[in-house]
Amino acid sequence: MAAPVALIQGASRGLGLEFCKYILKNQSLAAVIATCRNPDGAAELRGLAGQHPSRLTVLKLDVNQEEDIRGAAERVKENFGRLDLIVNSSAMLHPSGKGETSLRDVSAQGVISTLTTNTVGPLIMAKYFSPLLQKGGGAFGQQPAEKAKQHSGIIANITAKVGSIGDNGLGGWYSYRMSKAALNMATRNLSIELARSRPKVLCVSLHPGTVNTDLSRPYHRNVPKDKLFTAEHSASCLMSIINSLSIEKTGKAYNWDGTEIPW
Amino acid sequence: MAAPVALIQGASRGLGLEFCKYILKNQSLAAVIATCRNPDGAAELRGLAGQHPSRLTVLKLDVNQEEDIRGAAERVKENFGRLDLIVNSSAMLHPSGKGETSLRDVSAQGVISTLTTNTVGPLIMAKYFSPLLQKGGGAFGQQPAEKAKQHSGIIANITAKVGSIGDNGLGGWYSYRMSKAALNMATRNLSIELARSRPKVLCVSLHPGTVNTDLSRPYHRNVPKDKLFTAEHSASCLMSIINSLSIEKTGKAYNWDGTEIPW
Repeated sequence: MAAPVALIQGASRGLGLEFCKYILKNQSLAAVIATCRNPDGAAELRGLAGQHPSRLTVLKLDVNQEEDIRGAAERVKENFGRLDLIVNSSAMLHPSGKGETSLRDVSAQGVISTLTTNTVGPLIMAKYFSPLLQKGGGAFGQQPAEKAKQHSGIIANITAKVGSIGDNGLGGWYSYRMSKAALNMATRNLSIELARSRPKVLCVSLHPGTVNTDLSRPYHRNVPKDKLFTAEHSASCLMSIINSLSIEKTGKAYNWDGTEIPW
Repeated sequence: MAAPVALIQGASRGLGLEFCKYILKNQSLAAVIATCRNPDGAAELRGLAGQHPSRLTVLKLDVNQEEDIRGAAERVKENFGRLDLIVNSSAMLHPSGKGETSLRDVSAQGVISTLTTNTVGPLIMAKYFSPLLQKGGGAFGQQPAEKAKQHSGIIANITAKVGSIGDNGLGGWYSYRMSKAALNMATRNLSIELARSRPKVLCVSLHPGTVNTDLSRPYHRNVPKDKLFTAEHSASCLMSIINSLSIEKTGKAYNWDGTEIPW
């Protein structure tokens, strides 16, 4: 069997970086492709690549540029020919770094920028990379015995519980909430289209909990200490979920503990 | 009591135009503000304004332009000082006029354009017009006896059942589905923020059924005849729902027959 290949999008820091570390550490045969907007500025990621020169490839990819995504998919196709896993990790709360507390803070440009990065980006990733996932070896997740139900690859979109419309009791954070609700719809649509292919590609949304990263930093004082996860812990929880996936579990949103999140 | 004032956004044709006609016909004291991108090209709407010169005002408003929305809100403030109802009606399936049947048809620019018109537009409408709705007389919907639970205005966002993530069993139409899922999140968020105000403003998403309009025309052959509504019938059904709303019903998505749609 061919060695697994995983692509982590938004890998310069935070959760994305920890996904790379987790796979390098726990799946000793796997190759990891780490993408980020600005590899030159991603010191920790470049250090990791220095430690794993034969296993970790860093690729420049700005999720806001369709041509960038297309070009990166071309390079992965040439160099690897397939993929077993994509994790779409990059996201912003809002261009200002702070979620809107009320309508007064909402601007069309702020919403559009957030939707472009958090929602459109992962969908365009799926557009260009799903042909490579269809050539994957299904190294991640659980394969049922029945061949027709097996999958070749997985797309994991990092969502957020605040992107659940049904769970929304507080309001605020318009751009971020809307971007994640729309991303969940993209996940659902992708899961349907890619379950029709042979072999199948799975697609899920995953909520990492509240993670100690730049995105959530302004809000940490409101989070109980035992609910504020390190990115390392969160990546580990989410990899456990990814490794439990099969066709029956596609097209849903899961919390870090594996429970389902309502739409 | 002051005469009711309703604003219909996207009123040049289809469902929006029928909302105008319905209110002019059935609420004989109400003033209607009809907005559209290009009043000069909206012959039927201008004809209607000719029939109701003292009751129907046509305003130019491009929902993609925040400055246009701000300017229109200024004019409504000067001329009316308040609003009882906004219906956000304008929407597109996709810039091409056809929903994506698969990932191959998806483009970043197509998704972003659809999100901008269908999702960001109604939210920015709420930003600039909600202060006027807070000054409304609560002429639409049902007022409970308890004063603290009464509302001054209503925002009705026209959604679509295909924007329900939980109801999505077919896939396709990426841009449109995602735009309506994100709009439903905006509805939910608005309902929370505007229920905190005194007096309250209600916000709901409404699904008009499959309506015989330009948007749905390419798909009519797939729709059973008794499920293909005229815009007139659909506007009438949705006005019945609007006129049944009270604070207990805010923040939800309703089908044309009044049943709730899952997120």
